[in-house]
Amino acid sequence: MILQKYKGNIYPINPYAEIILNNPVYSNIKDIPESVDLAIIALTAQHVSKVVEECGEKGVKGIIIVTGGFGETGTEMGIERENEINRISSKYGMQIIGPNCIGVFDPYTGLNTFLVPHERTIGYPKKGNIALLSQSGAILVTLVEWCAYRGIGISKTCSYGNAINVNESDLLGYLKQDKNTRVIGMYIEGVKEGRRFYKTLKDVTKVKPVIISKVGKTETGAKASKSHTGSLAGSLKSFKAMFKQTGVITANDLEELLDICYCFATQPLPKGNKVGIITNSGGHGVLAADALEVNDLSLAKFSKKTLEQLHGLPQHCTPLNPVDLAADADTERYEWITKLVLSAPEVDSVLVVVIPSGPNIEFQTIKTLVSVIKNSEKPVISCLGSTFKQFEKYKRLLEWNKIPVHTLPERAIKTIGALVEYQRWNQKVQ
Amino acid sequence: MILQKYKGNIYPINPYAEIILNNPVYSNIKDIPESVDLAIIALTAQHVSKVVEECGEKGVKGIIIVTGGFGETGTEMGIERENEINRISSKYGMQIIGPNCIGVFDPYTGLNTFLVPHERTIGYPKKGNIALLSQSGAILVTLVEWCAYRGIGISKTCSYGNAINVNESDLLGYLKQDKNTRVIGMYIEGVKEGRRFYKTLKDVTKVKPVIISKVGKTETGAKASKSHTGSLAGSLKSFKAMFKQTGVITANDLEELLDICYCFATQPLPKGNKVGIITNSGGHGVLAADALEVNDLSLAKFSKKTLEQLHGLPQHCTPLNPVDLAADADTERYEWITKLVLSAPEVDSVLVVVIPSGPNIEFQTIKTLVSVIKNSEKPVISCLGSTFKQFEKYKRLLEWNKIPVHTLPERAIKTIGALVEYQRWNQKVQ
Repeated sequence: MILQKYKGNIYPINPYAEIILNNPVYSNIKDIPESVDLAIIALTAQHVSKVVEECGEKGVKGIIIVTGGFGETGTEMGIERENEINRISSKYGMQIIGPNCIGVFDPYTGLNTFLVPHERTIGYPKKGNIALLSQSGAILVTLVEWCAYRGIGISKTCSYGNAINVNESDLLGYLKQDKNTRVIGMYIEGVKEGRRFYKTLKDVTKVKPVIISKVGKTETGAKASKSHTGSLAGSLKSFKAMFKQTGVITANDLEELLDICYCFATQPLPKGNKVGIITNSGGHGVLAADALEVNDLSLAKFSKKTLEQLHGLPQHCTPLNPVDLAADADTERYEWITKLVLSAPEVDSVLVVVIPSGPNIEFQTIKTLVSVIKNSEKPVISCLGSTFKQFEKYKRLLEWNKIPVHTLPERAIKTIGALVEYQRWNQKVQ
Repeated sequence: MILQKYKGNIYPINPYAEIILNNPVYSNIKDIPESVDLAIIALTAQHVSKVVEECGEKGVKGIIIVTGGFGETGTEMGIERENEINRISSKYGMQIIGPNCIGVFDPYTGLNTFLVPHERTIGYPKKGNIALLSQSGAILVTLVEWCAYRGIGISKTCSYGNAINVNESDLLGYLKQDKNTRVIGMYIEGVKEGRRFYKTLKDVTKVKPVIISKVGKTETGAKASKSHTGSLAGSLKSFKAMFKQTGVITANDLEELLDICYCFATQPLPKGNKVGIITNSGGHGVLAADALEVNDLSLAKFSKKTLEQLHGLPQHCTPLNPVDLAADADTERYEWITKLVLSAPEVDSVLVVVIPSGPNIEFQTIKTLVSVIKNSEKPVISCLGSTFKQFEKYKRLLEWNKIPVHTLPERAIKTIGALVEYQRWNQKVQ
């Protein structure tokens, strides 16, 4: 994929080098003949404050500090360094992201401050409508890589580390009004201004869904996050209450975080919580059904009309919900049952499970399913239940047509639960 | 991979064909000139009992019935068909696996009754020491495919469907004494003889670990399993109690089932529950630490001696547990810290997280880690935190050297928890 190239001017600053990546090098930011919008600082900790001061003198309004060795070390010196930077930024009215972060990747402008060597990543995600925020740099890189791999599009991403100046509430406020962003996913260890975070979340979730994966759920985890980004994790109980009162969707791990974001980015909101399940593996149907309750969903109860039509299925199939199309299911059987279940008014959303090793499943089955599902007004999630390379193209075809694909049925059901949860919240607050 | 070819004679039986896969076809099992050890029946339901009777007359002692359309349909006819087959099997003293199953795959003998067309699977797993049992055929296929893909070796697998004759207790009893099997993983919807299952489990877990993923946890799921394999799911509470009293490890989903089996198949049992965590991503360290408590594990508290040595790390690293080697971690840093933590007597097991996009991480880093970890007397699990194709070889190198690899740190910690749980059980019952 060809990425948007950053079109602005780049000025490397280094007292020793003369040319970096074909750009002439300045020994001090103040030597640059033009005005500078953003300074990215990747020096060792002891030199940072001096350069921040120089940025102020130059009139730079935005800074990203990549460097670690500040408050997260828990040392007096680290904390004093942070305070010093804050004093300078107030003096000049600058906004600072970091320190101890990797900053921003924005596929729309091509701005990329990740400092990850090109040969280490196979690519960045395409333009899309999911924004990702993470205190941890490595976790953001992991998420961004995943998006690239799965073809999931991104609007903006930011790792903000110790958040001494720009924090999660600032970033959320910005993303609320960002036109390219439809859904916001966050990894947080702790927050800086609890009260403001609460208000901001309440404000943002009225407009777009916010999905948060919060660590520091346990005492052990909380201690570890203290020495990572200097975050006070806060009690899990108070965070749970905050998320509930502000309509935030909670993700239990990073995979779930992306799964749910992708679901919101591609699916319409369902009208209610009644799920229809179609499968060629009874076991996967049972696993999916089993996951409904905990996600506040229920199996759609098929109407007499739907049931009558389902009785056209061969005897060894199960003409109930979950509809088990049996091991010999073929393209035709999938096509008419999916059409039937999708159009049934008693069904609000649909999970389609296809085990591709079924003897009559072909690539054509997936192509047909895509054409049936593609413009559905109801959310449709798929589960391929296979990690096999041979079926990679099945997965790709679905995901490229914005139909999320899962391996585990439980994870698929979780994303439908998130849609319903947000839809209910949305109805309540509008 | 070249699979063991089945060396016994195969006799296709069909009234119409003359040659199937180069084998001469018999029109009736009784026409076969030799004795027959195992009959595989894949006829439509109404013809099965007649053929079972013929097998009895022929003196066949083992039968696998693939056909569905029996008790799982919930119809009187389906149940009557099962009873009829049971009557015939008693009369002749035959053992029957199924109906409504795909039977057995055994890489040691090459026996494979899965009826999955060759072009639908890219391969079967190699010989190994994990046995897998599943009521559902499609779920067993999914698990077997996963094993093949991840290079996980298998001893024996069996899908046993409605279990009208041979049931989970029979299979467990067999696997207990099977020399190739070191660990047993099961997917169950319900059980046939509760009391016997309890006793069998108690008996088997003394010798080898049993990991079970049980569905029908909710009313909705239980209903769905009733129409899938005709299983009565039983109350979750009673199953939980049974698993606790018999030392069974519970897996929450199929991925976890395989992860835990693979961990037992490759790792020694730890002496205690103290975990050492090494990482180049603070965030992943926090996620891992956060997952400890719920798995009854704790962070190893480093001794004075260990801490002193850790202070040789650069200032921006975290010389505590989790040890954060920081974004610039390289092969050398990983090597000495992993050696140090592995040899610390206060550490019972180790999680090594490597985010491969770190600027100084190379394939050599993984090679070095493998040589450090390979013959460890403590369990060592790794987390690559990346799904990237470019790093596929990193993953492969680790897994081929029997070091389990995870993407999510929580899943890695869960497997260590399983080892500790079984080790405690083992100490109690020995």
